[in-house]
Amino acid sequence: MAAVFRSSFKLRASARLPAVRTLTTTSQLRAAEKPFFPNEPSAPQLSTAIPGPKNQAATAELKEAFDVRNLNMLCDYSNSIGNYIADLDGNKLLDLCSNCLHSRWLQQRPPSKGAASPEMVAALINRPALGNFPSADWARILKTGILKVAPKGMNQVFTAMAGSDANEIAYKAAFMYYRQQQRGGPEKEFSEEELQSTMVNKAPGSPDLSIMSFKGGFHGRLFGSLSTTRSKPIHKLDIPAFDWPQAPFPSLKYPLEEHVQENALEEQRCLQEAERLIKEWHNPVAAVIVEPIQSEGGDNHASPAFFQGLREITKRNNVLFIVDEVQTGVGATGKFWAHDHWNLETPPDMVTFSKKAQTAGYYFGNPALLPNKPYRQFNTWMGDPARALIFRGIIEEIERLSLVENTAATGDYLYAGLERLAQQYPEHVQNLRGKNQGTFIAWDTPKRDEMLAKAKSVGINIGGSGASAIRLRPMLIFQKHHADLLLERVEKLIKDL
Amino acid sequence: MAAVFRSSFKLRASARLPAVRTLTTTSQLRAAEKPFFPNEPSAPQLSTAIPGPKNQAATAELKEAFDVRNLNMLCDYSNSIGNYIADLDGNKLLDLCSNCLHSRWLQQRPPSKGAASPEMVAALINRPALGNFPSADWARILKTGILKVAPKGMNQVFTAMAGSDANEIAYKAAFMYYRQQQRGGPEKEFSEEELQSTMVNKAPGSPDLSIMSFKGGFHGRLFGSLSTTRSKPIHKLDIPAFDWPQAPFPSLKYPLEEHVQENALEEQRCLQEAERLIKEWHNPVAAVIVEPIQSEGGDNHASPAFFQGLREITKRNNVLFIVDEVQTGVGATGKFWAHDHWNLETPPDMVTFSKKAQTAGYYFGNPALLPNKPYRQFNTWMGDPARALIFRGIIEEIERLSLVENTAATGDYLYAGLERLAQQYPEHVQNLRGKNQGTFIAWDTPKRDEMLAKAKSVGINIGGSGASAIRLRPMLIFQKHHADLLLERVEKLIKDL
Repeated sequence: MAAVFRSSFKLRASARLPAVRTLTTTSQLRAAEKPFFPNEPSAPQLSTAIPGPKNQAATAELKEAFDVRNLNMLCDYSNSIGNYIADLDGNKLLDLCSNCLHSRWLQQRPPSKGAASPEMVAALINRPALGNFPSADWARILKTGILKVAPKGMNQVFTAMAGSDANEIAYKAAFMYYRQQQRGGPEKEFSEEELQSTMVNKAPGSPDLSIMSFKGGFHGRLFGSLSTTRSKPIHKLDIPAFDWPQAPFPSLKYPLEEHVQENALEEQRCLQEAERLIKEWHNPVAAVIVEPIQSEGGDNHASPAFFQGLREITKRNNVLFIVDEVQTGVGATGKFWAHDHWNLETPPDMVTFSKKAQTAGYYFGNPALLPNKPYRQFNTWMGDPARALIFRGIIEEIERLSLVENTAATGDYLYAGLERLAQQYPEHVQNLRGKNQGTFIAWDTPKRDEMLAKAKSVGINIGGSGASAIRLRPMLIFQKHHADLLLERVEKLIKDL
Repeated sequence: MAAVFRSSFKLRASARLPAVRTLTTTSQLRAAEKPFFPNEPSAPQLSTAIPGPKNQAATAELKEAFDVRNLNMLCDYSNSIGNYIADLDGNKLLDLCSNCLHSRWLQQRPPSKGAASPEMVAALINRPALGNFPSADWARILKTGILKVAPKGMNQVFTAMAGSDANEIAYKAAFMYYRQQQRGGPEKEFSEEELQSTMVNKAPGSPDLSIMSFKGGFHGRLFGSLSTTRSKPIHKLDIPAFDWPQAPFPSLKYPLEEHVQENALEEQRCLQEAERLIKEWHNPVAAVIVEPIQSEGGDNHASPAFFQGLREITKRNNVLFIVDEVQTGVGATGKFWAHDHWNLETPPDMVTFSKKAQTAGYYFGNPALLPNKPYRQFNTWMGDPARALIFRGIIEEIERLSLVENTAATGDYLYAGLERLAQQYPEHVQNLRGKNQGTFIAWDTPKRDEMLAKAKSVGINIGGSGASAIRLRPMLIFQKHHADLLLERVEKLIKDL
């Protein structure tokens, strides 16, 4: 099996397939590029069909105790390096799925600054209730890490565990703020009726307020966040949900430059409907949450003008504006935060983060968003100091290696290559999107699932989003020479369909 | 200030206050005891009033970026050792609050097995989506750690981030199971109506089902878990909640041996009402969740017979039985899991864990509880391999040092000492509870908040629960000589009131 497989498609740096013709000129660029990981393989390495025998056996073992039906592949992280992810059978795939996940690229940092530092060991064995018993260096960890990269206009953070609860605690802050305004300020006490009714989950203590999200949006899978998730039924089925509104998200036509007027009208329509819902929904809207790029929902983009309009609407109607940067944040779009692309006059009220930060929470700037009493926004752990240290390490590496600039430049290069593929194979590369958005690039293709299923056989680990999109989520250390390897393989996949 | 303070109450091993008289005989026991941490202080050490000047300055710094109103004290973990928690001013307090939190006592493990091991470093920098791209050793980490201590009747786990989401994913499993039964089995497909309605948060796709919890219960602060939390209004106010039922939790009278009949009737009353609610609540009950000891709600206990009855009721009515061991689990009650005290004929359907495990999730045994399709019970991280390794280290230390047995023995000793205090000071030590429940001990006292406020001044870090309880939550390494120090100081606090 392995032998047959090997002969059917074998890619080595020394024996490349004919590349997309137009790539020839870029080989010079590639040669001039200094690799972040000099000891990376020069190309994907395939030893067996995937999954190979060792991975199959290990998966069977894991299945005894853990749900493996979501499994993409079991990974051998000890043999993974840089942009290459290894399995147990010696295969090393170029990794287009992992930007939002592990931070393997920290492995080249000196141990004293890295994951084995004394500071880290202390954070691991002393996991306090951060709200009650933080370590004395928690302020410094925040200031030199999480808060150092706070979005413009924000200087405070509530830390959390993951994207879902980061969004939910932002919702909680929004509800508390909304009711506080209704009461007439933070010094106003709760009424006896509120104190009594909340214990039986009824208004006014547990009020029928809502968070508005957008069709196609994804904000998590816990009960509050899932009520704002609108990407796919499989996430939501059988789970009780709150009666909250969803606004339409613009459905843009591509190429953008050929549909300027039409797209502007579409965005206008969505904004109008969003404002109508805010004004009319029977459960008053305390906040609007939106992703800068709808990720799970299919890599759906909107223009800065749309988001500027949304910010205006939320201000006008006195509802909070939460930007969910769980997937888009930390450099992937060619800016540190994706909403930096919008040039807002007034910053968002809250910005949530997770994934590439390897820790989670929400930023804010307005002190009125601080709940008026202690223990209203609280939980035992409130995050993890060990993961906060990892985020700090990530930030240091991003700065040292200029990785946001790298992502912007690599993204432009990669996008140009995909534009050429779109010209050559228009039926297989449709609605190419993510121009000037770093490596946050996607396109639609009619045989998407077939392509994804074959991708590992040409040495790439790549994923989809929505119903028909292939989305790219490389690490921040993805460079132009990796883009070349990817473009060659995407073309190969298209030709083999 | 510090000088005044020092002279007002100074406790040193060499200059003890007159102890509770009955402790004299136990000094021999204490002497024979081998300390787990020989280099611990022999008694609390007080250098300044608390908070001292350094802690005050550091708290002011933290306040710039982080909500400090929940703060109990900033801790200097580098100078904390064993059962003693240090602040920046050189104070070292006997710690009765931290059992559910940090795992500082791992610090005596050799580095190769501890928080700086190569395995840990790998887990820290490779934080994959555990559902999609687990590391090849994830099965081994589970089997030698989390699953090694799985409750009786359970062999599978869904891992999570913290107690709140552990409970919520257990609820999700319960709702999916309930609807699957209604549909007629796992192979039945969702209807078109379900697929459509769930995207607008309506039944039947998002059904109006419920989870029943108990008055006084605490199960977390996210939207689903908060809907089952019924301990205090401050956790719930202003946050929308689901229309779910709460059953009464037994309000037992103490001492138990003097109110046998009365308490049995009270438990019977609560069980009857629980069953009535399950049968009649307008949003059908998919599962019941209960804590073995209501912790946040005031350390409320019920008898094994009550929980056996609850298990019978849930079976009879075909609803799932979830035991929330987030606070009670991992040894504190003198058994590894608190529900081990019940001797159930049929194990719970799911058991959730967090806190002392330093990682979270739910155990289960029945394969029918596995959702019928992938991506229904899923999130990006699904826990943290680094924290799973810490739990494994905790389990190894618990076994090596026989810490569950220690907790049981220390708990009995401590309880006996508190019984003596209750006899001496009946108005200050009321409703003493937690007999044979390890160190999970609490009592009511009319001037609770005043006592807690003064506790640090006698060298102990101690907390409350509910409206009037003082609760003990020492670490698993709390020994009889620590109990002596505690008893002396509790008596001192009572005398000074």
